[in-house]
Formats: sequence, structure tokens, C-alpha cells
Amino acid sequence: MPPLTEQRNIKLVLEYDGGRYSGWQRQNRKEKARGEKTVERSVSAALRRLFGREARLTGAGRTDAGVHARGQVANFRISSKLSCDRIQQALNAFLPGDISVLSASEVPGAFHSRFSAKSKHYRYSILNRRAPPALLRGKVHHCSYKLDVDLMRREARELRGRHDFRAFQNAGSPRKGGTVRNMLSVEVKLNRADGIISIDMKADGFLYNMARNIAGTLIDIGRGRLPAGSTAGILESQDRRFAGQSAPACGLCLVEVKY
Amino acid sequence: MPPLTEQRNIKLVLEYDGGRYSGWQRQNRKEKARGEKTVERSVSAALRRLFGREARLTGAGRTDAGVHARGQVANFRISSKLSCDRIQQALNAFLPGDISVLSASEVPGAFHSRFSAKSKHYRYSILNRRAPPALLRGKVHHCSYKLDVDLMRREARELRGRHDFRAFQNAGSPRKGGTVRNMLSVEVKLNRADGIISIDMKADGFLYNMARNIAGTLIDIGRGRLPAGSTAGILESQDRRFAGQSAPACGLCLVEVKY
Repeated sequence: MPPLTEQRNIKLVLEYDGGRYSGWQRQNRKEKARGEKTVERSVSAALRRLFGREARLTGAGRTDAGVHARGQVANFRISSKLSCDRIQQALNAFLPGDISVLSASEVPGAFHSRFSAKSKHYRYSILNRRAPPALLRGKVHHCSYKLDVDLMRREARELRGRHDFRAFQNAGSPRKGGTVRNMLSVEVKLNRADGIISIDMKADGFLYNMARNIAGTLIDIGRGRLPAGSTAGILESQDRRFAGQSAPACGLCLVEVKY
Repeated sequence: MPPLTEQRNIKLVLEYDGGRYSGWQRQNRKEKARGEKTVERSVSAALRRLFGREARLTGAGRTDAGVHARGQVANFRISSKLSCDRIQQALNAFLPGDISVLSASEVPGAFHSRFSAKSKHYRYSILNRRAPPALLRGKVHHCSYKLDVDLMRREARELRGRHDFRAFQNAGSPRKGGTVRNMLSVEVKLNRADGIISIDMKADGFLYNMARNIAGTLIDIGRGRLPAGSTAGILESQDRRFAGQSAPACGLCLVEVKY
């Protein structure tokens, strides 16, 4: 048996279309019992096929059912001499078309895709026009009511900095490590060429459903369902009932994880 | 029976994901016999459902199987009093999710979506990276070999202006109205944020498969399969055999039709 020191720690950067999956991994036993497809399971199957044995895969963020990723990070340990280029190539050959390995690289043994993460970048995309999306269906949230982008941008500013984001966490979520997070930036932009409003959120961490609850709140304010200026009060209330509704999963994408 | 003058001419602007369709309309009897799905047939079925009778639909461009549109234009004549807003709304309710009516408007009786068109804008999109696309699969052409974008840009300049584009027309194509077209602009751009190279072509008209043959030729030059500087010679040769291979349909999109 080779000594443990020979195990390499491999970091993968993954892009996926979350539409067919019940998230990165199963959230509970009920989902497990239903045998639902997860991204983690698909990548693990490709690893098993490549190396002929199990490799435990750890993801940086547990994206929900239907949420996409352009830069999910996962790592696994393996004692194989295969080059990282070959690992990437082989995994892409084995994976279904809606999951792609953007890169594979060797990282120090102490690297842990979740615990070593310094910050995450989520983007919420909204197609704000009357007609439903044909080309981007399942990749953006369709809002047919006119949104006030300038107002959304002003409200988003209130979320920057270190806050207790409990009001934007789904009720009944597990409370590990508290509910204070540092929101590094929130940017609301309208791309006039394609009519897409993007909400870019960068934070040292996100509570369960926080990105979608923030997006839903900004949308509710942008369409006038919640009054202008309510973001600060919602944050202060620390009460989920004051925030807007959770925006649909299909609009959310994990863009990048920084280490 | 109402007099003919009561017929309104309605112009639709359509977005569609061409992936499931064998093009805007059937190209020949063999396709017709196979009963293949076309975009024109799907929109006609929605019109029939809305108005309770047939309405002859004319499209501006006969996009091929798998080709997408962000701004296809089609028109039909109908003697109905339904407002254009309601027509748009109802059609979108009846159409499958991969076809969307962006707008419906009343136009003068003489308007013909194909014959009245002054110019068309096609965009060819290439994902130039090693990893296959997961989020944009079926919407871009994946090139894993490195393309020289600056070289492609220089070559594209040779195509501007009035030329006989016979070398970029598929062999055996019908020769209606000659093969001289005026290429208003060809722009090659690299979007560094997503790694997509786009080739934007605007012309007063396109020969059969011309956009895909131009894209394929520029790709062949960009990857070194055809020598730098060959575009001018290919154009002059008026011989399809000198041009590069036809680029796959999934990368092509009809962006806009101008009148």
C-alpha cells in the first residue's frame, strides 16, 4: 500500500447547467430515497470510471436544485500519476453534456474546497421584458413587469458590509457558524443589448437560500411590491417574514469561488 | 364576406432556439415527407389556434436546421380586430417554450418580410476553450484549438463590400437573383469575460449557407488550416472548393432584419 503522502489533492473547476439536477448534493434523506440526480453524484461516477475506485468529492458550495455554476470548485484525493490535463480531458469525455470540467490542478494537501474558500460570487440573472425567453429559457428568471433598476441598485447598497443576514435565510435552516456574513459587493446592472438585469453578489459566505432571497427582495422592491428603502429595515429585523419572496433557482449561478 | 381592404398585415419579431427544429421551413419534399418540425409550422399552428383559421406566414430568412434567431421577422394577413398586444400575448401562450414572439405590430399592406428586407444581421458564436460548453451547449460552436482572433479580424475585412459570394454558397444551391451581395460589415470580436468569439455579419442578403461557410473559412484560417491571406483569393476564385468547411448550425443566430 502506498504511503498517504503519495495521495495528490486535485482541484476541479466546474461549469454546469443545473436544470436536470436536484442540486450539487442531496439536501436530505427524502431526496436520497427518491434517488434524485445530483451534480456531485455525476462527477463522482466519472471519477470512479476514470480511476476504477471511489474518490470522495467535496464541493465549495451546495447549489440548490436548478441552480447553475460557471465556477463551482470541488476537490478529491487520489494516488494516481495521471496528469491534470489528462484528468480534465477524461472526465469531460465521461461526463454528461451539461457538466464540464473547466480545469483540473494539483493543490496542497491542506486545500479544502469548502473550508479554504475566502469568498464566493453568485450572479442572479433576470430577463426583464414582456416576451418569455426562448434562447435563455431555464438560464434566466423571466420578469414581465417593468423593474426599476436604479432603485434596485440603490437598495442593493444597503446590503454591503458585515451584517446579520438572518432575514435573508430560509426559515428552519440549520444555524451553523452563525448568521453574520460580510457582503463584499452587490452590483445591479442592466445589459441593454440583451435586456438582462444581473445582480452580482460577492460575500465571504452565503446562508441557505440567501442569494435567492436577496434577489427576490430586490425584485419585489424593483416592481413596487415592497416599498423603496425597505432593505435596511428587513436586514435590521432579522426576520425572514419581512424579506421578499425567494427568486426562482434557474436565475442563479455560482460564478466564482476565491481562495 | 368582409372586403379585402379590411385585412391587416401583422409583422412578428421572433426569438427561437433552433435546436429542436429542422429550420424555419422545410427545404425539400424529403423533409416534408418525414414530417419534420419547423418553426414556421409551429407558429402557423399557434395562429390557427388563435384565429380559428389558416394564416399564411412568410419569414424573412429561411434559417437552417439548428440555427437560432433573436430577431427573425415574419408577417401574415388577417381580418381580425384583436390588438397587436393581445396577439403577441396569445401566441406566446400557445407556442412551445423555445419560440417567443418579441413583438407584434401592424404594418402597411405592401410590407413583405422577405422582399421588403433591406439587410440582415447574422452572428456566429464560437466558444474557444478546451472544455466543452455546459451552460451554452447547443448555442455556440465549440472550438478547442486556439484561434488567432486578430488574424480572423484582418481576414474578415476582405469580405466587406459588394462581391460575388459564389465561393461561399453551397454547391448545388438554387441560383435565384445572382450571387452578388453587398456585405455591409463583418466584425470579429473576442469577449474576454466568457471566452466567446463572435463573427457579426451584416449584408443586404445571404446566399444559401453563406454565413456558415464564411464562419467556417474564418475558423479554418484562425486555426491555421488555411493560410493567412487566403480570403481574398477564395472570394475571387468563385469556387466553393477553395473556401473552408461549413461551420456547425448551432453557432449561428439571425440577430436582426432591417427594413
